Amino acid sequence: MDGSSVFMIEQNLLPFEFKIHEAKTYKDTCHAIRTMIVRGAGAIGAAAGFAMAQAFIENHPDGRCEIESTRPTAQTLFYAVKRVFDKAINSKYPKRAAFEEALAIANEDAQHCRLIGEHGEKLIKDGMNIETHCNAGWLAFVDWGSALSPVYAAARKGKNVFVYADETRPRGQGARLTAWELLNEGIPHKIIPDNAGAHLMSKGKIDIIIVGADRIAANGDTGNKIGTLEKAICAKEYGIPFYIAAPTSTIDKDCPTGKDIPIEERSDKEVLYQTGRDKEGTMREVLVCNPGSNAGNPAFDVTPAKYITGIITEKGIVKPENL
Amino acid sequence: MDGSSVFMIEQNLLPFEFKIHEAKTYKDTCHAIRTMIVRGAGAIGAAAGFAMAQAFIENHPDGRCEIESTRPTAQTLFYAVKRVFDKAINSKYPKRAAFEEALAIANEDAQHCRLIGEHGEKLIKDGMNIETHCNAGWLAFVDWGSALSPVYAAARKGKNVFVYADETRPRGQGARLTAWELLNEGIPHKIIPDNAGAHLMSKGKIDIIIVGADRIAANGDTGNKIGTLEKAICAKEYGIPFYIAAPTSTIDKDCPTGKDIPIEERSDKEVLYQTGRDKEGTMREVLVCNPGSNAGNPAFDVTPAKYITGIITEKGIVKPENL
Repeated sequence: MDGSSVFMIEQNLLPFEFKIHEAKTYKDTCHAIRTMIVRGAGAIGAAAGFAMAQAFIENHPDGRCEIESTRPTAQTLFYAVKRVFDKAINSKYPKRAAFEEALAIANEDAQHCRLIGEHGEKLIKDGMNIETHCNAGWLAFVDWGSALSPVYAAARKGKNVFVYADETRPRGQGARLTAWELLNEGIPHKIIPDNAGAHLMSKGKIDIIIVGADRIAANGDTGNKIGTLEKAICAKEYGIPFYIAAPTSTIDKDCPTGKDIPIEERSDKEVLYQTGRDKEGTMREVLVCNPGSNAGNPAFDVTPAKYITGIITEKGIVKPENL
Repeated sequence: MDGSSVFMIEQNLLPFEFKIHEAKTYKDTCHAIRTMIVRGAGAIGAAAGFAMAQAFIENHPDGRCEIESTRPTAQTLFYAVKRVFDKAINSKYPKRAAFEEALAIANEDAQHCRLIGEHGEKLIKDGMNIETHCNAGWLAFVDWGSALSPVYAAARKGKNVFVYADETRPRGQGARLTAWELLNEGIPHKIIPDNAGAHLMSKGKIDIIIVGADRIAANGDTGNKIGTLEKAICAKEYGIPFYIAAPTSTIDKDCPTGKDIPIEERSDKEVLYQTGRDKEGTMREVLVCNPGSNAGNPAFDVTPAKYITGIITEKGIVKPENL
């Protein structure tokens, strides 16, 4: 945040173009969250905190409602908005207090993600093949990432690692964002269709699975990108360790079980159409499904705690039942 | 087949354009199988049988080798080629014998698929939600289809059915071909990302899963489109009946278990690029993944018999262990 503007990477343009998006008002930041210009648990949280600060600066603390309605599943969004609101409303200097609290949340996010890397790195042995779903790297947070932070920490310690990045239809965050991050980090990797997970597990090609989280219920049930549940069930079947990596701000104590995690249903256009770059370098949107058919597009699913080997947080690794 | 040409639906253009492709020589037909102009277990088998007949007509019975090398997984391909070859080589009139045997195989395929519909229809109750993977409808066979034949039979008997068609990345046979078939048949349906299967199962939205098969081993292990294994494992977890529908020509007695089913690895371009129709109606190929990243593209996986509730054949429904 600089002045009253929030700056963020325009993630919808990645991996084809790198651009910084400026959101001048809290309404602009809401729009950026809703349209996934900024996406990923921690990045949504940080952006929402700054949006709340913008709302105070614009003398619209009632903007809280609109910010909280941008995306329903990500817990850090509600966590950040509440922290900034509570701090500002009780301060003599609400605008400054709001900004400072939002900044503190963003800095904590980066710090916590670095610690997730330190803890999680111990799970990764030299030569391991790691599968991950969606994007829970530095793009999804303020820095370092959650699921990918242990991978980066392991690689920086000199361990050889190989990452299978699930494509993650319909939005392709694995194929686009995780692969882009991994290429930038110089980490050997392959994009795989979401369909290929169990096949690779059955062939002994996957040693560990690490994914992020959008919301963790009090009993350890975890809401994350659609498709996570399938990987967790298959991992259990093949005896492959399945870890969630997330800062404790992702835990929703008011949410007793996974049944209480709201699941966002997004537009079926995200399934029916795909954007990509043509031979000439022009971005194009093409219909990839049968014209006239509709699609379902639940954006998240809930993985019951029984499939989760452990949750990697900034405070250490914990079994979901001991959360 | 008419004269020495084989005619088939150009499936790569569907659902955007309907066109009949003419393969004038056995080499043309090989090309059509390899590039998936014709695809689907039964349709590949029929095309391969006719290709073998073309090879005899062209005085090239040695073309068998090339026909058999087009695609490694589909059992019906080897079944049809062997039948046509054996019949022709032992006949006084090999060209006519080859054509007649290829035609018999195609007619049997349609007849067997019709019977699969009659047997499988009994599994479908009024109001059921059916999930299917890839395309195992009439496009994938000479007529009727395997997995979709029971659905069509149920609908024609007046039962209300709803189909969730898995998109089936990377080639999108569910989103393109199954959805197109279902729309043509007037059957209510939704395309879902492959990632959404377990989520819908966990919510009680799926009553039965029916898929096709490319090769069934003697012990009932089944090779089918990549992603089938994930659905089968998840179905078992949620107690949802999981059926394979396939004519007995798909059974490979010389293949003791699933470990012996060869898995075709296709070009990673199928994952990295997507074709679709733009707003102006032009077909375009766009890069949908991170430039510079590679992809894995195993085209099939093997579902162990223990996850399969039953196999629907033209002779009736059998448990895999009683195959």
